[in-house]
Amino acid sequence: MSISIAHLGPPGTYAEAAALAYCRTLTRECDSKAWLCPYPSIAQTLHAVAKGQADLAVVPVENSIEGSVTITLDTLWQLDQLQIQQALVLPIQHALLSRASRLQAIQTVYSHPQALAQCQGWLENSLPLVQLVPTNSTTEALQHLDTDYTAGVIASQRAAMLYQLPILAAAINDYPDNCTRFWIVGQQSSPGGSHTSLAFSTPANVPGALVKPLQAFAQREINLSRIESRPTKRSLGEYLFFIDLEANASTPLVQEALSEAASHTEILKIFGSYSVIPIDSTALIEN
Amino acid sequence: MSISIAHLGPPGTYAEAAALAYCRTLTRECDSKAWLCPYPSIAQTLHAVAKGQADLAVVPVENSIEGSVTITLDTLWQLDQLQIQQALVLPIQHALLSRASRLQAIQTVYSHPQALAQCQGWLENSLPLVQLVPTNSTTEALQHLDTDYTAGVIASQRAAMLYQLPILAAAINDYPDNCTRFWIVGQQSSPGGSHTSLAFSTPANVPGALVKPLQAFAQREINLSRIESRPTKRSLGEYLFFIDLEANASTPLVQEALSEAASHTEILKIFGSYSVIPIDSTALIEN
Repeated sequence: MSISIAHLGPPGTYAEAAALAYCRTLTRECDSKAWLCPYPSIAQTLHAVAKGQADLAVVPVENSIEGSVTITLDTLWQLDQLQIQQALVLPIQHALLSRASRLQAIQTVYSHPQALAQCQGWLENSLPLVQLVPTNSTTEALQHLDTDYTAGVIASQRAAMLYQLPILAAAINDYPDNCTRFWIVGQQSSPGGSHTSLAFSTPANVPGALVKPLQAFAQREINLSRIESRPTKRSLGEYLFFIDLEANASTPLVQEALSEAASHTEILKIFGSYSVIPIDSTALIEN
Repeated sequence: MSISIAHLGPPGTYAEAAALAYCRTLTRECDSKAWLCPYPSIAQTLHAVAKGQADLAVVPVENSIEGSVTITLDTLWQLDQLQIQQALVLPIQHALLSRASRLQAIQTVYSHPQALAQCQGWLENSLPLVQLVPTNSTTEALQHLDTDYTAGVIASQRAAMLYQLPILAAAINDYPDNCTRFWIVGQQSSPGGSHTSLAFSTPANVPGALVKPLQAFAQREINLSRIESRPTKRSLGEYLFFIDLEANASTPLVQEALSEAASHTEILKIFGSYSVIPIDSTALIEN
């Protein structure tokens, strides 16, 4: 059976690297069994799965430096039918790709805003006078490099190999432990696993409205590995809360905690329980 | 006494509109007493005040649709000495500025990623085939319009007036109640007021680590109007929490809650107590 996997494109993005890493965990013969479908935005990637145009989507959720990828959270809340199938954490190492012969010749640096932000210290020190231009993905601007020898793009080493572009500076991210968590999302029911993700809205302007649902987990010593607030888009000061539990929703203790939490929330949506795939980072570049 | 106010530029941004709205509350003769200093990024705006190059900075904190402006939170945490002096909420109404004669002629739309996101529904319906190009501010790309009649920029009506550019479509934001909260930040000590903002880090991997400091406020019926998590940038899964209280930090009850919260956190920083200035939205466009 062949499966289609949607991701942010064009090819060479970190989302594609995550999709390939996921494929490798599925089967050794992945290349013949899965095909990758690049989409121009993360929202379109998730919508493709909701509409049945692709079987799975691989989407970034959170970066260790820049924090949440809010479009992923917002879209998942809107699209009721999607469940998280697995998670994986990808090490991120940025490089500066350019056809310039030396750093001093660079006048403009293009990349996704998250990548620009993750290299801001290096950019301020090494290229203090260049113009920074945000793009929709790290690979979108690579086309500029063939005609503009004063341009650079922050992307992965894998993108440099794919597009046969020179690396002018490697490992330029400010924090060496930079990594991004991705979710693999589909319409299949939740597979179960060590982590559970959910989101809820709380009644507005009630003191302790957030504390009560959190207590339902704390009292049972269920660890929250993450909490993130997002606006409801109704009015300033009304939020949704996205929570990751280090627990499987199918156990009676977690079921009990979820029922209690639900009684203190307006709407509670469970995005599924899933396992986290360990990734061998050294294998990533070769693909 | 003349004061200098830093904000995200070039002139015509919503941050500048917020700075002008703040000036108007200071004195009727604001123009002669305050001068505005545009900076190319929000981080540079805050650094200017920390270095004493400007007296105050007006920075966006949160939008009702797109959520937190994370660079503001991250920079405030890093720069220890800044205190919030006041807050104001600015209504946001986007327009499409262009020299094209009709919508169908537009091929590219430039704007700040937050503005593009706040108009994504309108863009999908009215301009489904255009290329969307993110910029560092809503006004940065206005220079393109004079030479490229197929380009549009999403910016304010005030920007259209300042730069004498035609409005091709008005009120294009997807949610009519779109507004942004700004903070006025300086090195002066906290003035006191109805709201208090703080941030703290919690010990990693302790069940209930977030619940305990929150309980300190909930037990005393002190309402949290906002909670936001940000990565510590040390490792994935370690967070800072930014919290707004509807209370003045100088009252004994809040002092007691803050002491109790501090005993459950690693580092706790108080960014000050301040009042929220009511803004007359109809007066904004004329400036």
